[in-house]
Amino acid sequence: MKIVVLKFGGTSVGSIQRIKNVAKIVISYLKKRFKVIVISSAMSGETNKLVKLTKQISDNFSPSEYDAIVATGEQISSSLIAGRLNDKGYISRSWLAWQVPIFTTGDYSHSRIININKKNILKFIRKGGVPIISGFQGINSKNRITTIGRGGSDASAIMIAKFFKAQKCIIYTDVDGVYTTDPNVVPKAKKIKKISFEEMLEMASLGAKVMQPHSIQDARLNRIDIEVRSSFKNLSGSLITKRKNISTKNIIRGVSFTKNDAKISLIGVKDKPGVAAAIFEPLFKNSINVDMVVQNISSNKKETDLTFTIKNEDLTKTKKLIKKNRKISFKNIIIDEKVSKVSIVGVGMITTPGVTFRMFNALARKNINILVISTSEIKISVLVDQKNLKKAVDVLHKEFKLDY
Amino acid sequence: MKIVVLKFGGTSVGSIQRIKNVAKIVISYLKKRFKVIVISSAMSGETNKLVKLTKQISDNFSPSEYDAIVATGEQISSSLIAGRLNDKGYISRSWLAWQVPIFTTGDYSHSRIININKKNILKFIRKGGVPIISGFQGINSKNRITTIGRGGSDASAIMIAKFFKAQKCIIYTDVDGVYTTDPNVVPKAKKIKKISFEEMLEMASLGAKVMQPHSIQDARLNRIDIEVRSSFKNLSGSLITKRKNISTKNIIRGVSFTKNDAKISLIGVKDKPGVAAAIFEPLFKNSINVDMVVQNISSNKKETDLTFTIKNEDLTKTKKLIKKNRKISFKNIIIDEKVSKVSIVGVGMITTPGVTFRMFNALARKNINILVISTSEIKISVLVDQKNLKKAVDVLHKEFKLDY
Repeated sequence: MKIVVLKFGGTSVGSIQRIKNVAKIVISYLKKRFKVIVISSAMSGETNKLVKLTKQISDNFSPSEYDAIVATGEQISSSLIAGRLNDKGYISRSWLAWQVPIFTTGDYSHSRIININKKNILKFIRKGGVPIISGFQGINSKNRITTIGRGGSDASAIMIAKFFKAQKCIIYTDVDGVYTTDPNVVPKAKKIKKISFEEMLEMASLGAKVMQPHSIQDARLNRIDIEVRSSFKNLSGSLITKRKNISTKNIIRGVSFTKNDAKISLIGVKDKPGVAAAIFEPLFKNSINVDMVVQNISSNKKETDLTFTIKNEDLTKTKKLIKKNRKISFKNIIIDEKVSKVSIVGVGMITTPGVTFRMFNALARKNINILVISTSEIKISVLVDQKNLKKAVDVLHKEFKLDY
Repeated sequence: MKIVVLKFGGTSVGSIQRIKNVAKIVISYLKKRFKVIVISSAMSGETNKLVKLTKQISDNFSPSEYDAIVATGEQISSSLIAGRLNDKGYISRSWLAWQVPIFTTGDYSHSRIININKKNILKFIRKGGVPIISGFQGINSKNRITTIGRGGSDASAIMIAKFFKAQKCIIYTDVDGVYTTDPNVVPKAKKIKKISFEEMLEMASLGAKVMQPHSIQDARLNRIDIEVRSSFKNLSGSLITKRKNISTKNIIRGVSFTKNDAKISLIGVKDKPGVAAAIFEPLFKNSINVDMVVQNISSNKKETDLTFTIKNEDLTKTKKLIKKNRKISFKNIIIDEKVSKVSIVGVGMITTPGVTFRMFNALARKNINILVISTSEIKISVLVDQKNLKKAVDVLHKEFKLDY
């Protein structure tokens, strides 16, 4: 059986017209003799409306009831899709998590799928039916509704593709794929035909609109290839797959960047074991994401300079936490609120020497000063002044042949 | 165990403020050491919104998907009530029909409850929990969501009261009980403390706002006493119960009426066996409700005059159906569009002679002409000119001592 899993995000089912279009897409696969399993998100905006109701009842609304409420969003969209397919003469029905059933473990609102009972769905598919499964939800061992915290409906689609050994798992969304960089910044940005899970994870800043990093990681661990494409335009999308399926003709797959970072330097920090942990612990506890970290070699062996970056929006909170931190002492704090991180990402750099040199050289040619550097196996990131951001992305996009 | 079933209608859970109030009412019963089972309707307006979505998808939307969609309304309100009780420190949770489970039979949208699994709910109640059960829904033998056609959430409450042998079944609604007549027409109308199922059924025209006739019949057949009271005002309500629980001090329980009826007389109908059936069959088939029917004795043995009443809104359709009816012939058709039906209802009239006389006499004193008469065991109805309606209701309300 050639099974294809089609997942439709919130904007793809965001109106009656969009739901009718979803049915059209489903029918196009049926005509190609695929067996189709559809996973639906809630109509865009619906989940927020429901969350608002719970907040009006209590600041600390019961998580089990919260999940039972928000799960209604997918219940409605699934039935609307099934109803539309019925109207067009196709055998289809909605399947709620408890009807499949889809079993989850973990806390309410943060559950994970651990098992899916395939029997009833397979029977329905064999009879020619198109199951429309509500995404984002499962049931737990208490027979109560749970929702899937990380990745939501994408995670549902990936697990269903895995359990049913689907040939394809296609995520329909409101963007038409993954681009070499943000097309709004670099008009020459190109759609990437194939990208590895690892590259996609490193390009999370660009990819966030496409899929959450958690879902990409899920797909990687479960070896499910994901095609991302638009439900609005009939265009080929991007395939997220394992490295060995991808040509390494391009050393670099894309250029990603952040817009609003802040750089904090602590000068003359008393250097003793555990000082970095002492600085960062209160930040982690307050959900402040520390990105790049550099510890400078100090001339004075008893002191060191420490530089790190955070999101600009976390700056006020971070300054407060550092100032009231009794576990550390330092001479001076220097803050630069107008910095951006530019990264080049590509599995090709593993086997290609000199990529770092080419990157630095290209930036130097444009007189762009590098403030901080950090590297991973398949990514090189540099911190630059915000005013140099566009220039940096442009030159790197061109340098690594992504313009063509 | 003293179990009380509390059912809250759509307006009673129509806003966050109203839902908070429902929690207050529930808590007041817990403080009186009752074990409480709550049945919730959807927040008012929600079901209509959902129905509109299905209509936009298809004029002939799949009934099974329709039920799955509209059932989300009760899912949301039940969880909001449970969440509010949790917030106030009480053990409570929502129970969807499939979680109880509540088993139904019959077609989608017109299902009937046939069985309720009590085990899990009883276990939860014994632990001190307050179950909030979604009204209006069940599951069928295919494990799919169904909705209850006749009586909706009231029917759910009645069946739950029956299965759990509840001491009380209280229907909280937006009216504070059943009145001797419409208080908007007769300011001296009084709330009825106790009314029999049969009287309540006969007073359907007044009672419709309180409970659907189908639900009253359900309660009667299952011997469940129903208290109807307001969730808006803390006032004693009306008890609907069996005859023998009620004093017969009052011969008449109430005066009900219809406002907009039409009277149709067919003069000189060829009188042969089956002529009445031939006249009414096309009307029944078109869902036109024929109310009072009188066949006059004709002077000519081969002809008869037939008079009947219908709702004014059905008049145009009825005239068309009669005119194109080839199975009957008549000399003339006389239509009176401005008539109203006034009824006195009371089990007391069974054992009290002369009620009919007192009624006719009271109307005669006010010069009100009676156009048609029909009677049942516990009801006498007369058709009068619409202009005499208020006068008729007033005089009957006074004649049968309902003013005090």
